[in-house]
Amino acid sequence: MGNEFLDIKNPDDVKGIISNFQTIKKNEDVTIENSLSRVLAEDIRATINLPPFRKVTMDGYAVVSEDTFTASEDDPVKLGLLEVIGAGDVPKKLVKSGFCTEVGTGSPVPEGADAVVMVEYTEVKDGSILIHEGVTMGQNMAKEGSDIMEGDLLLKKGTTITPEKIGVLSAIGLKTVPVYKKPQIAVISTGNELIRHDEEITYGKIFDINSQTISSAVTACGCIPVKTEIVKDNYDDLKQKIIEYRDMDLIITSGGTSAGRGDVLRQVLDDLGEVLVHGIAVKPGKPTIIGRFENEGLDKYVVGLPGNPVAASMVFQLFFAPFLREMASIETKSGLTGTNTVELEISKRYRPAKGRKHYLLVKIDGNDAIPILKDSGAITSLAEADGYIEIGKNVEIVEKGTMVTVYPLGYW
Amino acid sequence: MGNEFLDIKNPDDVKGIISNFQTIKKNEDVTIENSLSRVLAEDIRATINLPPFRKVTMDGYAVVSEDTFTASEDDPVKLGLLEVIGAGDVPKKLVKSGFCTEVGTGSPVPEGADAVVMVEYTEVKDGSILIHEGVTMGQNMAKEGSDIMEGDLLLKKGTTITPEKIGVLSAIGLKTVPVYKKPQIAVISTGNELIRHDEEITYGKIFDINSQTISSAVTACGCIPVKTEIVKDNYDDLKQKIIEYRDMDLIITSGGTSAGRGDVLRQVLDDLGEVLVHGIAVKPGKPTIIGRFENEGLDKYVVGLPGNPVAASMVFQLFFAPFLREMASIETKSGLTGTNTVELEISKRYRPAKGRKHYLLVKIDGNDAIPILKDSGAITSLAEADGYIEIGKNVEIVEKGTMVTVYPLGYW
Repeated sequence: MGNEFLDIKNPDDVKGIISNFQTIKKNEDVTIENSLSRVLAEDIRATINLPPFRKVTMDGYAVVSEDTFTASEDDPVKLGLLEVIGAGDVPKKLVKSGFCTEVGTGSPVPEGADAVVMVEYTEVKDGSILIHEGVTMGQNMAKEGSDIMEGDLLLKKGTTITPEKIGVLSAIGLKTVPVYKKPQIAVISTGNELIRHDEEITYGKIFDINSQTISSAVTACGCIPVKTEIVKDNYDDLKQKIIEYRDMDLIITSGGTSAGRGDVLRQVLDDLGEVLVHGIAVKPGKPTIIGRFENEGLDKYVVGLPGNPVAASMVFQLFFAPFLREMASIETKSGLTGTNTVELEISKRYRPAKGRKHYLLVKIDGNDAIPILKDSGAITSLAEADGYIEIGKNVEIVEKGTMVTVYPLGYW
Repeated sequence: MGNEFLDIKNPDDVKGIISNFQTIKKNEDVTIENSLSRVLAEDIRATINLPPFRKVTMDGYAVVSEDTFTASEDDPVKLGLLEVIGAGDVPKKLVKSGFCTEVGTGSPVPEGADAVVMVEYTEVKDGSILIHEGVTMGQNMAKEGSDIMEGDLLLKKGTTITPEKIGVLSAIGLKTVPVYKKPQIAVISTGNELIRHDEEITYGKIFDINSQTISSAVTACGCIPVKTEIVKDNYDDLKQKIIEYRDMDLIITSGGTSAGRGDVLRQVLDDLGEVLVHGIAVKPGKPTIIGRFENEGLDKYVVGLPGNPVAASMVFQLFFAPFLREMASIETKSGLTGTNTVELEISKRYRPAKGRKHYLLVKIDGNDAIPILKDSGAITSLAEADGYIEIGKNVEIVEKGTMVTVYPLGYW
């Protein structure tokens, strides 16, 4: 007979333990092109003024505004044309009283000029320009720094970079963007019966599921599944792998966690450090282990998910995904682009597990939440589910038609 | 003087034109590891049974169930032990009446056996096994194909691949996953004043914003910005680039779309094919162009966004992001993980533009939607905004305290 679960903990206690995990945030620099969805590791301040020069905002003529004060439709002011410049050009001539320069939207305002007359209010006549409407100082131009002043705080540390924020980073010509490094995670499936999906299957073997679902869930949480491996279910192999991956930000295993005789993770963790959790009072997901050991003065954590793929996915999502997102500095979405729950009627009477908080997968059909009543190991139940409902540990029965809150499957 | 806008269209007509764009979906095969968030281009049917063999679901002893019918705590049945197998092992011996094989969770049920007695109800004595509780046929084992039968429809074409769906793909050992190819988009900024953010800035030049914001928005819509370039604002260069990128799924330019003299996109499109839209009755975003030309028998579309980065971003999001997502076969999110709007009070009186539908950027502060009242070209306004509100074209004034619907910035 194997070891019994040492000390089954309730879900809130486990969440408390996880919330106390120590982590160290590292930074890295990426290019703007690679910065989408990353998280700023430093405040971004403007390194230039924007616009970086006095900029024309309308096609027309740059003038000394005083020259135009008397201009009217019937009695235009006549100015000499100095030169023609467009966006990207550098003006060569000083605009003095009695003269103007033809300018395009985006071009610099030539020195001496202090306003722009829109082309609609002008006329070309015998090589001179007739101005039919007066302008005041500063009209149809933007001052240097009117949008952004050098030194302005543009984006705060911790901001997730969206296409709109990339606009600001591009505007000041940032060469590299300081972002949090994505946490590096090792994902290990244990089990002698497991083979990779790209191997050929033989009798007695099954394709491993957990290394793939958990790795992709790690990716969805903004972390990198640096290693994704299958390890034999024995003490030496598992211990060696955990030691090999001790520099990772987190090690997530699955399988080898129940109380049966072949289950070795608890022993490995006992010997390397300590077991913090051995069993959670939830269904599915009871055989979950959390351990800690020390490496170079730092606490390192090992998560042992159940071998059952449905349980592994649910426990990851419920307990560990929030921690991974926090490690990755990704804000939990809420408000405008968040996760919605919906209130629906359960479509049939359901008897939950006793004494454990129960997470029941459901499909949504109109106003109904339909419980998925497959065998606990059925991987198809996860693929079919639209979400899950929570049933308290003391609930004996959920009657048909009861309103339930459906949470989406996802990694927020 | 430049050309006037030819035919300003209202927003709904423009959406109608875009919804009629012809597109061709292409497929590609990716590995499971690269399939997260991609969209299935074919139905996935099971190629194997799951479990692929009769599988033990509890640690214990595989028996001929009939042998155990009389077993009780006080009067156990004694069976000879044939061999010990665990998960991943291949049983060598046939289980006959009077004998049993020790099995672990996940191992095959040996031939001849038809049930498993849990180890908790057994005892080892003098090399034999005492069975203290009877089992019925099929107990503590799963039949071959009980979760998935070869040929079962597992996932439908058009499904977005989540970590949970990856579980199913892994379970059947799929070598490659047929997904829709990501649409390939060229993103071009036009303007002689524009330089890339990784170049050195000189007088009269500004860092280009639109190529970066639009490229990252293209990525956020599930497409690939294959080319991201700055092109001089002249007929020949722009025409040559559009011809060069004629095999792309879409060409998106910005700048060169207003009615001024330097604006060339309309002329290029007129000559290559036809202009479908020249001006939309919205603010910001009026100078938007849509054109079509033919390439190898296929309709190709060119989008000309305004040069103003705020307008370019808003118009992309409002009119084109849904089309890009549709091209990428990404379902518009709704229900459990969708986009939320919120109803808030506008914090001050606002006078919208006349005769155009007005999209006003706002910040959210508690229950207030605070209008961002910067210059229309201020890139910081986009970075500060939490969302936008829509104001109908005939609204003359929005009084302080009016309830408004705030839409998030995003790419749904």
